[in-house]
Amino acid sequence: MPELRKDSVTGRWVIIATDRARRPSDFSREPVVIAPPTRFCPFCYGNESKTPPEVLAYRVNGGHNQAGWSLRVIPNKFPVLGIEGDLARQGDGMFDKMSGIGAHEVIIESPEHTATLATMTDKQVEDVLWAFRERVLDLKKDRRLRYILLFKNHGEPAGATLEHPHSQLIALPVIPKRVKEELDGAKQYHDFKERCVFCDIVRQESQAGVRLVMETDRFIVNQPYASRFPFETWIIPKRHDSHFEDAGGPDLQNLAWVLRSTLRKLDKTLEKPAYNFLIHTAPAQEAPMTHYHWHIEIMPRLTKVAGFEWGSGFYINPTPPEESAQFLREAGLG
Amino acid sequence: MPELRKDSVTGRWVIIATDRARRPSDFSREPVVIAPPTRFCPFCYGNESKTPPEVLAYRVNGGHNQAGWSLRVIPNKFPVLGIEGDLARQGDGMFDKMSGIGAHEVIIESPEHTATLATMTDKQVEDVLWAFRERVLDLKKDRRLRYILLFKNHGEPAGATLEHPHSQLIALPVIPKRVKEELDGAKQYHDFKERCVFCDIVRQESQAGVRLVMETDRFIVNQPYASRFPFETWIIPKRHDSHFEDAGGPDLQNLAWVLRSTLRKLDKTLEKPAYNFLIHTAPAQEAPMTHYHWHIEIMPRLTKVAGFEWGSGFYINPTPPEESAQFLREAGLG
Repeated sequence: MPELRKDSVTGRWVIIATDRARRPSDFSREPVVIAPPTRFCPFCYGNESKTPPEVLAYRVNGGHNQAGWSLRVIPNKFPVLGIEGDLARQGDGMFDKMSGIGAHEVIIESPEHTATLATMTDKQVEDVLWAFRERVLDLKKDRRLRYILLFKNHGEPAGATLEHPHSQLIALPVIPKRVKEELDGAKQYHDFKERCVFCDIVRQESQAGVRLVMETDRFIVNQPYASRFPFETWIIPKRHDSHFEDAGGPDLQNLAWVLRSTLRKLDKTLEKPAYNFLIHTAPAQEAPMTHYHWHIEIMPRLTKVAGFEWGSGFYINPTPPEESAQFLREAGLG
Repeated sequence: MPELRKDSVTGRWVIIATDRARRPSDFSREPVVIAPPTRFCPFCYGNESKTPPEVLAYRVNGGHNQAGWSLRVIPNKFPVLGIEGDLARQGDGMFDKMSGIGAHEVIIESPEHTATLATMTDKQVEDVLWAFRERVLDLKKDRRLRYILLFKNHGEPAGATLEHPHSQLIALPVIPKRVKEELDGAKQYHDFKERCVFCDIVRQESQAGVRLVMETDRFIVNQPYASRFPFETWIIPKRHDSHFEDAGGPDLQNLAWVLRSTLRKLDKTLEKPAYNFLIHTAPAQEAPMTHYHWHIEIMPRLTKVAGFEWGSGFYINPTPPEESAQFLREAGLG
C-alpha cells in the first residue's frame, strides 16, 4: 500500500510508492566522471585573464588574477542579474516587475579540473564553505539584496555547463518562493508548538535512526520523511541558527567532513550520480530567527521529474527514505 | 538589463533574462516523432485483455474490452495510489501520513499508435476532453477524493514511458501544493480587488496583445507575464468557472480546436517538442468559487531545469514571453 506523507515544514504531501520500491541499481544513468580538459577551460590555471576579475581568492603564491590560487570567486561572465542600477519596482498594467538587480558569482572550488567535492581534501571543502560565508557577509551589506542562494549543479544532467568543479551564488532582491514557504511553514509550527520544527526533526530523527545516514556532534545527515526524490539528503546542524553565515570555524570544519563523506556515500551507492545541492538559509537582511534553521538539501538526479510534478507541486517518490538511508548507512566512504 | 517579474496569482518571482534571449532554434533537442510499434504495445487494438478492464470507452463497434473503440480509459496497471481501504490519517512521531487512497487512470486517446493531439481530428481531441469530464464527474462522487489531476506527458524527455498517445488522471485525497498556492493567491487577490485575477488577466492580455498567441470567443491562449519556462503556454477560458467539469458542449468543442491549434503551433515553431500539460481546476468537493478560474498550463521541455530552480522555487527564463508569443502568432497551424 503506497503512503502519503506530509512534509512537516511546508505541508507538501508526497506519495511514497512502496509497491514500486526501487533500489540503487534500478536507476540507470551515466556516472559523472570528469576527464582532463580536451579544450579551453576558463577555470584552469593560466586562464585567469579570460574570466571577469576575481572578487575573492585563496592563494599560496601568485598575484591577483594570476595562477597560484587554491580557490577563486569571480562574477559570472553571463550573469542572470546585474549589480548596477536602481531597484525600480513598477507596475506593468496589472502586473509587477522590478529591474534585475543582484549578483551572480562562481566559486571555483579547486585549480584541479578533475576534482570533485567528494575527492578533494577536507581542507579544500572547508575552504569552499569559508568562501561561501565570506561572500555572503560581503554581499549582505548591500541592503537591496534580500536573499543569497548558494548552490551547486554537479554533472550535465543537473544543469552544469562547465565541468571544472564550481558552485554558484545568486543574490536576489526578492525571497524565492520555496524559501518563503519554508519560512512561513516553520513560523506556523513555531506559533503552535513554541519550538523550531527543524530542532524537532533533528531530535526525532537522531533518536529514531531509521532515516539517519550519519551523525556527528554538530550535524545530522538524514533522508527526509516526505522526500520528494529518491536519495534526497538533508544535512541539518544540531545547534539552532537561522543563518548559515553565523556558523563558526568548528562548525565549518565539521561540515566539510560531513558534506564530503555524504557525497562519497552517494558516489559509492549510486555510482557517481549527477546532483544539485542548495543551502537553505534565512533572508540576508533579517535578524536571527527562532523559527527558522539553516540546512543543506542535496538532490541526486536519478529520475526524470515529470511536468505534472512541477505543475502540481505533488511528487511521487519510488524509494522510501528508510530504504535509501539504509543503503547510505551501509556504504563506506568509498 | 534582465527583469524580475512577479506572477500575479502565486506571487512567485521569475528572472526574464533578456540579455541571453533565446530563439526557437537555440533549443537543440530531438523532435518527438512516434514510429509504428516495433514491439508489443498494450494500448493498440487486440491487446485489450492485457490491460486492466476499461472504466470508460467510446466505441463504434466491438464489445467491452475488445477492439473497435475510438477512446479507452483504464486503471493504470502500476498505480501510484489504490482505491481500496480506509483513508486512515495518522501520526508517525512528529510526522503525519495517510494511506495512499486514490485513483490512477490512463486515457488512451486514440487506437492509432502514431497519432498525437496535434495530428488527430478536432473530434478526437474533443472526445479526450469529454472523457476527462466524465471521469472527473464519476470520481468526485467519492467524497474522499479532494483533487483530480488531469495531465499529459508527451515524449520521453517529458516523462512518458509509453509512446501510444495517452493522458493520465490521478485522484488524490489531498490538495497539491502548487494548486493550493494558486487557490490562496487568487483568494488574496479577490479579497483585495473583489475581482477574479484570471478574469483580469484575460481582459488585460486580450487587450494588450503582446503575449497573446490566439483568441476565440471562448478562450485566450497566452504566454504568461512571469513565464517560468520558454514557450510556457496557458489556455484560459473567458467565462469565469472554477471547475473544468462545468464546461459544456460548446466550450469543449471550441477548446478541442484551440488546444489542437496551440499544439500544432508549438510543433511547428519548436520542431515537435516534448511537453507536459496540466489542467488546473478547483478542488473536486468544493462548491463553485468566485476567486478561482480553471485553465490549462502547457510546458514544452526545452531546457534542463537546474536543481536550484526546484529547490528554491526561483526560475530563470531565457525567452521573454513577448518574443515567444510573436513566434507562435506568426507560425501557421502546420
